[in-house]
Amino acid sequence: MRATIIHAPGDIRLETVPDPTIVASTDAIIRTVATCVCGSDLWDYRGVNPVVSPHPIGHEYVGVVEEVGRDVSSVTPGEFVIGSFYATDNTCQHCCSGYQSACVRREFVNGCQADYIRIPFADGTLVSTSDLPDDSLIPDLLALSDVMGTGWYAAVAADVRPGSTVVVVGDGAVGLSGVLAARELGAERIIAMSRHDTRQQLATDFGATDIVTERGGDGIAAAIELTGGIGADCVLECVGTQEAMRQALKSARPGGNVGFVGVPHGVTIACEELFFSHVGLRGGPAPVRRFLPDLIDRVLTGRIEPGKVFDLELPFDQVAEGYKAMDERRAIKALLRT
Amino acid sequence: MRATIIHAPGDIRLETVPDPTIVASTDAIIRTVATCVCGSDLWDYRGVNPVVSPHPIGHEYVGVVEEVGRDVSSVTPGEFVIGSFYATDNTCQHCCSGYQSACVRREFVNGCQADYIRIPFADGTLVSTSDLPDDSLIPDLLALSDVMGTGWYAAVAADVRPGSTVVVVGDGAVGLSGVLAARELGAERIIAMSRHDTRQQLATDFGATDIVTERGGDGIAAAIELTGGIGADCVLECVGTQEAMRQALKSARPGGNVGFVGVPHGVTIACEELFFSHVGLRGGPAPVRRFLPDLIDRVLTGRIEPGKVFDLELPFDQVAEGYKAMDERRAIKALLRT
Repeated sequence: MRATIIHAPGDIRLETVPDPTIVASTDAIIRTVATCVCGSDLWDYRGVNPVVSPHPIGHEYVGVVEEVGRDVSSVTPGEFVIGSFYATDNTCQHCCSGYQSACVRREFVNGCQADYIRIPFADGTLVSTSDLPDDSLIPDLLALSDVMGTGWYAAVAADVRPGSTVVVVGDGAVGLSGVLAARELGAERIIAMSRHDTRQQLATDFGATDIVTERGGDGIAAAIELTGGIGADCVLECVGTQEAMRQALKSARPGGNVGFVGVPHGVTIACEELFFSHVGLRGGPAPVRRFLPDLIDRVLTGRIEPGKVFDLELPFDQVAEGYKAMDERRAIKALLRT
Repeated sequence: MRATIIHAPGDIRLETVPDPTIVASTDAIIRTVATCVCGSDLWDYRGVNPVVSPHPIGHEYVGVVEEVGRDVSSVTPGEFVIGSFYATDNTCQHCCSGYQSACVRREFVNGCQADYIRIPFADGTLVSTSDLPDDSLIPDLLALSDVMGTGWYAAVAADVRPGSTVVVVGDGAVGLSGVLAARELGAERIIAMSRHDTRQQLATDFGATDIVTERGGDGIAAAIELTGGIGADCVLECVGTQEAMRQALKSARPGGNVGFVGVPHGVTIACEELFFSHVGLRGGPAPVRRFLPDLIDRVLTGRIEPGKVFDLELPFDQVAEGYKAMDERRAIKALLRT
């Protein structure tokens, strides 16, 4: 089969590798219908995370079940499925408390930019749709695999609820999904921080009521002003840098909450500052599995169209171009049809 | 009147100073009935916080209203009152959202180890009891002014609810009050970390179900083991050091919460670690005013006896001995009758 291998920063190649096979009795093999490039793949692509040796890449997927191990009971060959980037048993205590991404048996599902994928703990990881979805819904369903689930978790971690005032830091696909999540969770006011026209437009489509183009201190000041000098109830930090975290913490009101889902890179927090801010903070890799049934339902009923974050669709053999376009910010997020 | 002045680390003196007077029309003057020494006063006493010049000290008080400004309407001379260490208007948006300690007009009420105190924003700060309380209840009511209100906030910030598993880091008066708060909020299991016999005893009296005597990595391991390898739902960090914060964060389960009320001294958090822990974090100076009516009711109905944290009661002129006893850990907390 074809699989995407990153050899070094900037060096993405589509190569022929052996097809995956069932290893454990709880595995499933999926034929990928679509996959995509994540903002976090760019950490490798840009050399922020070291690429020690060539390795398969990609962790977002939708597909059709090809084969299952003998202990898999919840999905069967031929079904269309969506899963999270963590394979999880969905039965341990962390899973049961809604933190599947902290599952005691979790395995990162890597190498999804490929024709086939082996998914461990298929019963705990995959959620199937009752029918094969219409082709037009593939982008929306694929978005649930990570980016929409992550934006949703950011909003949940920031405690967005009906009437909330929300600031979203980061206008990448996750930040934009966070805007959509905030709208769905009933936020009354959603302030998106974005300097890019196309992203501002999508943020507005997704429910942003205000756009702040400034960054740093000016961005904070603008957010505070828009919230009547009080600060936001909820802030979604969807970047992962020190500057974004600072902006997030300073935009929240005392008693407000920051949900942070940008994987932190060298970010530290001075506790004394956090203390006197009275701001609550929770982050982490999103427990996407918790949200999948609800999000699939919202997609299938036409309530949300999270696939709009894909503004570039390429055939799979142009995966390298997908990375390049995102790296150069020509695309928000690239979808690959296999 | 007599007032406690700190001149330098270790140098506490009772001096004669002018009586306070009404400055603003929203002020009240209180005749102190009892005051006490706070763990945070020891930061000055021990020279951790610099003592730049001699200044009045103490921020916990109960007393009888002596005089009020012309715009004070909720308390009248002769009434017995309890207030928080922050004077707050209780009308601004931060106050209305329950974060009175972030009041836009807040003033730290310092110099309470004195015969009389001037309280700004008396209407927003003071809560009176309907009758003059029995002398035996003074320690319990005094505890509400800071230490019990702060322990309560730690438990609320850590989201303690019926059935929760709770770890309390710190066996000072605040930590012990946190144990009591956790019990009142319905915690099923309360693990107190303490190495001191008398404090362990009080923790048990207050509702601790388990005592962990180990610290650092061993303490974390013990807490994790006691929670079935999962970690606690809620952790109360009542110290303010890097080690205590580390212990708190590592004792919580993914999805759990740390409420931190020990004023942080040089504590930093690596966000990447916090991210992958999935632990929520909220701290701050306690919005004691939010909890006062409820806590006063619990005291007056005999439901809680938070005054048990005072294991040393001295006449006011021995205030220096109160500091010394706490500094040398001969006393958990010293009460001073004026």
